[in-house]
Amino acid sequence: MEGFSFSTDVRIRFAETDAQGIAHHASFVVWLEVARVAYLARHTDGYQAIRDGGLEALTTEVLLRYHRAAYFDETLTVWARCVDVRGARFTYEYRITRAGELVADGHSRHAVVDRETYRPTRLPAWLADAIATAESAEA
Amino acid sequence: MEGFSFSTDVRIRFAETDAQGIAHHASFVVWLEVARVAYLARHTDGYQAIRDGGLEALTTEVLLRYHRAAYFDETLTVWARCVDVRGARFTYEYRITRAGELVADGHSRHAVVDRETYRPTRLPAWLADAIATAESAEA
Amino acid sequence: MEGFSFSTDVRIRFAETDAQGIAHHASFVVWLEVARVAYLARHTDGYQAIRDGGLEALTTEVLLRYHRAAYFDETLTVWARCVDVRGARFTYEYRITRAGELVADGHSRHAVVDRETYRPTRLPAWLADAIATAESAEA
Amino acid sequence: MEGFSFSTDVRIRFAETDAQGIAHHASFVVWLEVARVAYLARHTDGYQAIRDGGLEALTTEVLLRYHRAAYFDETLTVWARCVDVRGARFTYEYRITRAGELVADGHSRHAVVDRETYRPTRLPAWLADAIATAESAEA
Repeated sequence: MEGFSFSTDVRIRFAETDAQGIAHHASFVVWLEVARVAYLARHTDGYQAIRDGGLEALTTEVLLRYHRAAYFDETLTVWARCVDVRGARFTYEYRITRAGELVADGHSRHAVVDRETYRPTRLPAWLADAIATAESAEA
Repeated sequence: MEGFSFSTDVRIRFAETDAQGIAHHASFVVWLEVARVAYLARHTDGYQAIRDGGLEALTTEVLLRYHRAAYFDETLTVWARCVDVRGARFTYEYRITRAGELVADGHSRHAVVDRETYRPTRLPAWLADAIATAESAEA
Repeated sequence: MEGFSFSTDVRIRFAETDAQGIAHHASFVVWLEVARVAYLARHTDGYQAIRDGGLEALTTEVLLRYHRAAYFDETLTVWARCVDVRGARFTYEYRITRAGELVADGHSRHAVVDRETYRPTRLPAWLADAIATAESAEA
Repeated sequence: MEGFSFSTDVRIRFAETDAQGIAHHASFVVWLEVARVAYLARHTDGYQAIRDGGLEALTTEVLLRYHRAAYFDETLTVWARCVDVRGARFTYEYRITRAGELVADGHSRHAVVDRETYRPTRLPAWLADAIATAESAEA
């Protein structure tokens, strides 16, 4: 996908469908999180390492636009890129595709906080650097 | 809440929390849906009646902004109003509060479709009228 | 329900249904938890008070037998009783009914642990007493 | 795992954890379903093919025993075997392991029904045969 160098696949679970016969719209929010975790695993020591370092990344905003219905057992590709890293804050942008066709897109915003005090905390340099490297590699 | 005449309460379930010790951000998406269903139950014969009439309301967009963390067993009030009803489409706007304090806000957009063909279908007049009455009552 | 003095109602959410058009079987597991939390709120200072006291109740077993399908927007009554309290362990038994008709039944087993060490910890006397009082009241 | 010839892996999602800091016990019920779907995909044309054939497999019972807590981002292996196929009914047995250590075990029971009438329907011969072949291969 143009502008995205990272993606991860999710297979739609039966538990993620609803009585409309399609994937429930809240399931997509979980898939964005799965993609963020996979992104961090690819480019850093992973989200658990960030947590073990005394930090937590809170979600401060989620936007999803649903363009097509998705169905049980389909494989969706979640494209993700991390942008606007500044201070304690960063943003992910997403495209969710099925066989190249756009199913949904959106973004999420996050704030890094101290796990104990919940105070906003600047992204550690190693994390900001890893993201910068990941995203520049994509050009 | 100024500008909102409808609200419903949700009690945060343990299953809706995550390892950050707070309500998971995807849980809020479900609570918006709970509020929409309660709104329709209050002002119409309910969502199931719409489904029984051969229609389904798809979610085409969700936006949530999280202002404060929410915790297990807290009672949140989800304020909802239905706006921009036109043709097959309508929008809900939300404020989620805890003891008067803003926890999150956002909106969702929806399209009415035929349950069989999934083709966009104009809101039935009785539904558009019920929404208009509900929202004008609030003025 | 004979043998049960406590119940709480749940309204089936759209998000809890699946593409079979019925409530997903994992949703019932969450409703059992909702019932336990409501039971403790009725008979004690609530589960959060137990957590604030440095304890956590882990789930060590869940059994559910599904007798009838349940559908979106139906109200189910979850009957719960606490039995076999001994040491760090206790069991809940459940009947889930809809308009008096049995939809599901089952049980769950739990172990109280210290929140820090995760070591099994005898139920505090006030909790064992509150449960004993609750269950004897039912006779 | 002795007695099991099939397994599939799941990676614990952050959304699947709870405020106890561990995977929520209802998440395991979903993983059993993921394993059943993967089992059918391996040994047949998949669950969707069964649905397309006008059948649905309902869950009539779930038992889970939790032996150890599981944590965010861990990879669990879900071992599954299908036993007691007779008429419209069949049973799955499970072991869930982490690095060879038993985390949970249990079973689920199912009934095949007609998708329209919800009447119990004998397993199609091709499905019963595929299961018999799969399970005999394991010996």
